[in-house]
Amino acid sequence: MQRGLILFAHGARDPRWSLPFEAVARSVREREPQLSVQLAYLEFMSPTLLDAGHTMALAGCTHVDVVPLFLGAGGHVRKDLPLLLAELATSHPHIVWQLRCAIGEVESVIDAMAQAALGLTRDESPA
Amino acid sequence: MQRGLILFAHGARDPRWSLPFEAVARSVREREPQLSVQLAYLEFMSPTLLDAGHTMALAGCTHVDVVPLFLGAGGHVRKDLPLLLAELATSHPHIVWQLRCAIGEVESVIDAMAQAALGLTRDESPA
Repeated sequence: MQRGLILFAHGARDPRWSLPFEAVARSVREREPQLSVQLAYLEFMSPTLLDAGHTMALAGCTHVDVVPLFLGAGGHVRKDLPLLLAELATSHPHIVWQLRCAIGEVESVIDAMAQAALGLTRDESPA
Repeated sequence: MQRGLILFAHGARDPRWSLPFEAVARSVREREPQLSVQLAYLEFMSPTLLDAGHTMALAGCTHVDVVPLFLGAGGHVRKDLPLLLAELATSHPHIVWQLRCAIGEVESVIDAMAQAALGLTRDESPA
């Protein structure tokens, strides 16, 4: 079984918006170099989820985890994303597409944000 | 100096969207019970940043940190938020309103997300 991981983010017009997401992808690749890791975006940025999925298929992945890099799970995560994944499953039925919970729902991420927020308030330098 | 902390999030139509943000606020309050902590939203949810700011003023805060609970810093963080803060500063000029960087730009949060994403791929239970 060849595994892949798609990190799915919203996207934005400002190219600087994606920097933290690229940093997450980089960190994941460093931690697990044998895993195929791709960022994908809902809008404004590329690749789309469909394009990233096709790339995973071309790379021979047979199991692809999709982790939404969203803090809250609203319409984008609960509605748009499953529809896109259903399209991918139709195009590539031999691949297992495994949708995971939004990253912001993971307790360790919530803890890290709480700790970071307090850390920022103690910082004497401007934002 | 009485300090306050506003955690500023985007907001969404789905009420479940705010659960992780409420969890962050809860965790911050537990870690620092003497700090006034308020969640505030750009749209769809309440209170707004202006309402949360007025509450901080009524509570007697003299220094309020505003931490954007956004992963990426695009138009909402770079344009909308400073305009709202400028409004607050005009209404409450005796308070120091300190804008902090987006939570997703903090390295410990990026690390936590990378680790959590890999953890999710190892989870055998469905999302």
